[in-house]
Amino acid sequence: MTTTADRKYWRTAIADPSPHEGTLVRGYDVLTDLVGKIDFGAMVYLLYKGELPKGNESKIINAMFISVADHGISPSSTVTRFVQAAGVPIQCSVAAGAMMFGDVHGGAGEEFARYIQELVSEAASSGRSYEDVATEYVGNHKRLDGFGHPQHPEGDPRGKRLFALAEEYGLAGDHIRMTRELEKALIKKKNRPLLANIDAAVGAIISDMGFDWRLARAFIVVPRTAGLFAHAFEESVREPGWRQITLDQVEYDGPARRKNDSPSAI
Amino acid sequence: MTTTADRKYWRTAIADPSPHEGTLVRGYDVLTDLVGKIDFGAMVYLLYKGELPKGNESKIINAMFISVADHGISPSSTVTRFVQAAGVPIQCSVAAGAMMFGDVHGGAGEEFARYIQELVSEAASSGRSYEDVATEYVGNHKRLDGFGHPQHPEGDPRGKRLFALAEEYGLAGDHIRMTRELEKALIKKKNRPLLANIDAAVGAIISDMGFDWRLARAFIVVPRTAGLFAHAFEESVREPGWRQITLDQVEYDGPARRKNDSPSAI
Amino acid sequence: MTTTADRKYWRTAIADPSPHEGTLVRGYDVLTDLVGKIDFGAMVYLLYKGELPKGNESKIINAMFISVADHGISPSSTVTRFVQAAGVPIQCSVAAGAMMFGDVHGGAGEEFARYIQELVSEAASSGRSYEDVATEYVGNHKRLDGFGHPQHPEGDPRGKRLFALAEEYGLAGDHIRMTRELEKALIKKKNRPLLANIDAAVGAIISDMGFDWRLARAFIVVPRTAGLFAHAFEESVREPGWRQITLDQVEYDGPARRKNDSPSAI
Amino acid sequence: MTTTADRKYWRTAIADPSPHEGTLVRGYDVLTDLVGKIDFGAMVYLLYKGELPKGNESKIINAMFISVADHGISPSSTVTRFVQAAGVPIQCSVAAGAMMFGDVHGGAGEEFARYIQELVSEAASSGRSYEDVATEYVGNHKRLDGFGHPQHPEGDPRGKRLFALAEEYGLAGDHIRMTRELEKALIKKKNRPLLANIDAAVGAIISDMGFDWRLARAFIVVPRTAGLFAHAFEESVREPGWRQITLDQVEYDGPARRKNDSPSAI
Repeated sequence: MTTTADRKYWRTAIADPSPHEGTLVRGYDVLTDLVGKIDFGAMVYLLYKGELPKGNESKIINAMFISVADHGISPSSTVTRFVQAAGVPIQCSVAAGAMMFGDVHGGAGEEFARYIQELVSEAASSGRSYEDVATEYVGNHKRLDGFGHPQHPEGDPRGKRLFALAEEYGLAGDHIRMTRELEKALIKKKNRPLLANIDAAVGAIISDMGFDWRLARAFIVVPRTAGLFAHAFEESVREPGWRQITLDQVEYDGPARRKNDSPSAI
Repeated sequence: MTTTADRKYWRTAIADPSPHEGTLVRGYDVLTDLVGKIDFGAMVYLLYKGELPKGNESKIINAMFISVADHGISPSSTVTRFVQAAGVPIQCSVAAGAMMFGDVHGGAGEEFARYIQELVSEAASSGRSYEDVATEYVGNHKRLDGFGHPQHPEGDPRGKRLFALAEEYGLAGDHIRMTRELEKALIKKKNRPLLANIDAAVGAIISDMGFDWRLARAFIVVPRTAGLFAHAFEESVREPGWRQITLDQVEYDGPARRKNDSPSAI
Repeated sequence: MTTTADRKYWRTAIADPSPHEGTLVRGYDVLTDLVGKIDFGAMVYLLYKGELPKGNESKIINAMFISVADHGISPSSTVTRFVQAAGVPIQCSVAAGAMMFGDVHGGAGEEFARYIQELVSEAASSGRSYEDVATEYVGNHKRLDGFGHPQHPEGDPRGKRLFALAEEYGLAGDHIRMTRELEKALIKKKNRPLLANIDAAVGAIISDMGFDWRLARAFIVVPRTAGLFAHAFEESVREPGWRQITLDQVEYDGPARRKNDSPSAI
Repeated sequence: MTTTADRKYWRTAIADPSPHEGTLVRGYDVLTDLVGKIDFGAMVYLLYKGELPKGNESKIINAMFISVADHGISPSSTVTRFVQAAGVPIQCSVAAGAMMFGDVHGGAGEEFARYIQELVSEAASSGRSYEDVATEYVGNHKRLDGFGHPQHPEGDPRGKRLFALAEEYGLAGDHIRMTRELEKALIKKKNRPLLANIDAAVGAIISDMGFDWRLARAFIVVPRTAGLFAHAFEESVREPGWRQITLDQVEYDGPARRKNDSPSAI
């Protein structure tokens, strides 16, 4: 099943499933080199970057994961709970909830990571100042993903906390700097504190660690599956087996009862 | 749980679940007005348009559904079979396969329906001829979704057959006409018969019936779930319970075995 | 990638993807033998049984499909709507809703088909009367899947209607007969009309047509995906992009605010 | 939308989404009490147990997570790659792969956790020795989930390593002890080293930490989603957009080409 004489149907540089002591992940034997020696944050870094972290990257990944692991009853946990209540295996209920982190929600982090990486590259290649690049970008866009939060007019505390930790861990770099410039330009333009929210925080921090923007959703979805398992479990042990939608929750505004008087067409 | 004083959390014009003889769908009682009187093609039409078909619409929907119901071992049936072999309920295996009809595959029909509807609107509003509009569009695009098929250099036979049926059923209209103009413009430009394929056929036919382009994928996915159930079932009755990927199918091209000599970081 | 010298990695008797006029499904060329000649109900029959129907099987499949194609706002359409509102492609939103037809809901039809097929086999092999076999089974089980419906104390009208059609179409056989005996035994035992519901109707009818019980969910899920597409579409065109769960819908009954005074462990 | 006068439609003891500094998880403020103070292993413990760990529980959770985070090209990563190649958002591709950890694969850990918890309870309530209970159980079952591994006739090294760590961390308790007795009884019965594999290791260790067996799959699926994201990303950056199944991988063994000579039935 080779596609050419030289290529197998599947190829990967992530892990080698052939028998060593354990699986090789990016060249390291899981059992002798990783288990008991690094934590899961470092493992995530290794999986996506191909190298073990050299500094505090694992700490900030742990911090981000903890920030987003659960938010109580939310659209995604609701979906997981409905599916679980229908008698579906727990990994499927969780998968249904995990699918929710699309363009509207978790996608904001992906989109932010994409454009903040572009802005930093643009500044680097053009030699323009971050302030200029940010001001121009803010001027050209009516609405910016990653800034502001309806519940937090003074700024999303999660964004603030994660940026402070990134500074403390020595991991704040060009992408956080560019994010700060965007905040400043936004404040000037809108005359109110439209600060980086959790999506922007995750997007900027993973960009400063050099992750590709297409991996941004991993930093939301992987930890959130942990929360979704908690919800699926709680639903099955505390709630009845089938979650009804009752008529008082629903408004039908389609056509009233009408007759189909045509003769049978089959 | 109303969002305003007047609105329930859920509202729908599709069907009324409150007790009649049967459920009301678009105002018709399923049991007395629909079951035994119309076929499933007409039901699909009713669900998406809100009215029963007046002509042969049900016939062409049946034809499209039959065209795409199964293609044997394909990426989507493969996914369904892997998931089924893992001991997952059949509706979840089928759901995993159904997710495949995204931007690359079934999405071509959606994208085609979107732009063919735009081109027809543009001709109508500008008064320009279909030939002009089509020629301009072909001139402006390097690559057009919906035309050509790698296995059928002389034209996708499914497209031809469905268009012929649409003519026979009296359902061919402006969108099929515009599709023909695109074919002509493509032949002039490329000097070879780059004809409408199954995606374009489905996209043009549903557009001539007045369906919103965002429903195009339904005409692929609903019938294909029928095929995916056949694959899931066949996998469970004819194959062993766990489908292995053997080492000879895989090439690992990541780093060779290396040591992690750092002291434990946890 | 053969698993033995003689076997390809994938095998199937459903359809042949190699180039004919169209795909071969169970030996018939889709384009010349099926499209325009049979309807989708017959196609489903062909996919699962390997032969074209000889009688009215297609009509009863159409009737079953129409019965279950939509029920308005229900747990499955709710899930599809939440996922759609999150900016996820429509086929994924529908897939999430389709996963709901598990052991609790659509699964009842599967379970009913399984045991009604066992009871008919048992009567055939033992020579005992259907009445005896049914009475014994009812005596041995506290609760029987497939009978009774909370909203319809006098009997689920969908079950009645589908059984009447099966009789009319000449398709009622041993499994419907056994279902009737179970109804009689249940009435004797419980002293109230605990009649076959939609799950039992579908389970008995497909069993009379000779379908394997493991395919029962297909007769629910395939048509329901049609309804789920209608809900996903309606959600995207009529509702705002992100469906919130508001605080007034939620009760938190976990621990009150408490402090973590341990020193940092990382 | 309350179901009774006193109950909201949703309730949860996991997390409180109402505005604090951050979300409350099990009573702790995520931002002030958890982020930067605990690692993700401790967060998982808190989510599922409701309390922060007192000992090395976080370390062993990290070890288990790292053990299962990736296995290269496997059925689950294959599914994720197929779905990703079809142009589907990354969180959906990962969700499709995560659904694979069902009864056959990740389910073994769930099933093992269930019965090892039963055996320990039984010994406790009956006062019988672990050896007796284990010997009887092995005698009563032809095949035991959780023991042996086709690639490792001398014992699954992951099981050995994780048990060694559990001992080192002071977390080995009654369930690991009972697992050892099952190993001994199996060796006596089968006369070969049928040792605890990764499923049993995870099942026994989480049982010793007091987790409900229904949460066992979380300890496989959550970390594995991290690996699946790596595969989805690698597929999109290194492989062409649509992964074909070529004819040489497929054997069609259904009916040969035959004609449908019936007159059209529609």
